[in-house]
Amino acid sequence: MSDQAHMRAALALARRGLGNAWPNPSVGCVIVRDGRVVGRAVTAPGGRPHAEPLALAMAGAAARGATAYVTLEPCCHHGRTPPCTDALIAAGVARVVIASRDVDPRVNGAGAARLRAAGIVVEEGVLADEADDVNAGFFASVRRGRPLVTLKLASTLDGRIATRTGESKWITGEAGRRAAHALRGRHDAVMVGVGTVLTDDPDLTCRIPGYKSVPTVRVVADSHLRTKLTARLVVDARKAPTWIVARNGADPLRRRALAELGVTLVDVPGSESGVDLKRALEALAQRGITRLLVEGGGQMAASLLRADLVDRIAWFHAPAVMGGDGWPSAQAFGISRLADMPRFVRHAAGPVGVDWLTELRRAA
Amino acid sequence: MSDQAHMRAALALARRGLGNAWPNPSVGCVIVRDGRVVGRAVTAPGGRPHAEPLALAMAGAAARGATAYVTLEPCCHHGRTPPCTDALIAAGVARVVIASRDVDPRVNGAGAARLRAAGIVVEEGVLADEADDVNAGFFASVRRGRPLVTLKLASTLDGRIATRTGESKWITGEAGRRAAHALRGRHDAVMVGVGTVLTDDPDLTCRIPGYKSVPTVRVVADSHLRTKLTARLVVDARKAPTWIVARNGADPLRRRALAELGVTLVDVPGSESGVDLKRALEALAQRGITRLLVEGGGQMAASLLRADLVDRIAWFHAPAVMGGDGWPSAQAFGISRLADMPRFVRHAAGPVGVDWLTELRRAA
Repeated sequence: MSDQAHMRAALALARRGLGNAWPNPSVGCVIVRDGRVVGRAVTAPGGRPHAEPLALAMAGAAARGATAYVTLEPCCHHGRTPPCTDALIAAGVARVVIASRDVDPRVNGAGAARLRAAGIVVEEGVLADEADDVNAGFFASVRRGRPLVTLKLASTLDGRIATRTGESKWITGEAGRRAAHALRGRHDAVMVGVGTVLTDDPDLTCRIPGYKSVPTVRVVADSHLRTKLTARLVVDARKAPTWIVARNGADPLRRRALAELGVTLVDVPGSESGVDLKRALEALAQRGITRLLVEGGGQMAASLLRADLVDRIAWFHAPAVMGGDGWPSAQAFGISRLADMPRFVRHAAGPVGVDWLTELRRAA
Repeated sequence: MSDQAHMRAALALARRGLGNAWPNPSVGCVIVRDGRVVGRAVTAPGGRPHAEPLALAMAGAAARGATAYVTLEPCCHHGRTPPCTDALIAAGVARVVIASRDVDPRVNGAGAARLRAAGIVVEEGVLADEADDVNAGFFASVRRGRPLVTLKLASTLDGRIATRTGESKWITGEAGRRAAHALRGRHDAVMVGVGTVLTDDPDLTCRIPGYKSVPTVRVVADSHLRTKLTARLVVDARKAPTWIVARNGADPLRRRALAELGVTLVDVPGSESGVDLKRALEALAQRGITRLLVEGGGQMAASLLRADLVDRIAWFHAPAVMGGDGWPSAQAFGISRLADMPRFVRHAAGPVGVDWLTELRRAA
């Protein structure tokens, strides 16, 4: 098996940990000795232990003289775990193959250098593009101080998310809704605007049994704390975390009541249209969120697009047409010239039952 | 080669003639003698001669004892051409393989029966589904007295076809626009509402050199003859046919001026929102149109959807989001419950440059 094939296996492990590893990156590690896989691991739920010590523990004595494949450069700093570089050196690994360099300024090449200084052969950049994709949430939080933001939409072909009377259950089919739940699972947190909470009273959990060990954080952008104390997100806030992002100084009594029910309050400055979303994202990143799925509604989508805060889009199109009085997937956000319209690049597209899922990324 | 393989070749010929053969169906015919193709033809531009006599002429004496593959049951009635059944019998063909039965009541099995009566072995139903698809326009005109209606849309992901200021050039990319021209080529006529003519002044031709020998008829639904005498569709009406569907009794002076410039006037009863579209489609079918492409705008799309007159959709989605003040791809048409929303079935989907084309059919 080639280096690429082993790295591909490590990437598959890393992908499986997306949404479970925050505040840490989900890393995959495969240890190969004489062509045989002797250890494999992904970052543990909650982010610790890291993948390398887990895979080394599995390999035991077989790690001596082996090659370790890691999807992200091993850490070399003392955080809440000892450095992974030291664990690889102590285990007698002969060669380390790295996909992405860790952009964390405490690492950023220093991990590879430390391994080399210990006499280990180090190769970098194997399947780096794929690894950068897996690491995109972690990189966004390190580089930009905010999570990777994926906007999820489920609309008709003409972009409508509900009838004029507000009926939205269900525009997409069973398979599309299941795929949307899996999408939640691969994110650290799911965010909606308070309008969606008041209209739909969603629970925003990933309802796929066994899919996720760390529950996805449910986030509500709710500048004036209009979320009802009886909302599903509040009622079961002790089972799965619910965070409400409110503007500084919002009603202290209500704040206390929500906190008492188990809701975490996150304060950010206000803006014309509610909370300052850029500051809200920064606050989420500070609390460890690296991958954020935004599920609506149309006002939230518009605000994020206007502020150029959408990194990716997952758009489910149902094979139906509703007409111009349906609710728009994104409210107006000030585009009067085509040249100003945010454009994206198609990354993947495929059928999900009767619906069609298009995954896009912000054009560079 | 199997019967299916030869029929597939005949279907490819038939597809190539779509948009060229009206008022007749585009039929493909392949004649095979001792495993060798000795004749092949598609219905000639304008619908005559039919495919069978053309293929027989190519085969000459080799037709004797051969097998003829035809995508549609050969005609057995004396129309403007002699019956194809007689030509096949006269040429001494031994076996005829037919894909679709001709639903024309003058044929409808009588063609096959006549061949059998002459001692020819006849097989029916080979690749019938694919042939029914190719023949859908002809069948719609025979069975329902109206053309097959394909609605073409080019929008953003959120279903917008122009900015709030009316800018629409270009939402889709170069490749998508080229594909839209090819789509025009495969239809007998292209229809737009007068609003689109007043806003965009389109010429609606298939601008792909050599793609088409019979020009696509340009049709404007224009109840009160608001089309300007200087519109491109009017100015070059002598080069490519332009038909204006107006309500009975619309301004006689204007009617005369348009006719003088080469425009054909088609009279139909009026309706609340302009012309009665069902009657308009019937009038087009009476004039021989079997495949109609409708290109907009949002009011036309809404009217057709409301009247359940859309058989197929070709939707080009550009990878961009415009927001809720952009022009809708379909205006409101009275959907307040999801259950009432017209649903379609995805038939094909694929990339067209940066855009994505989804082809759908009306759900049964």
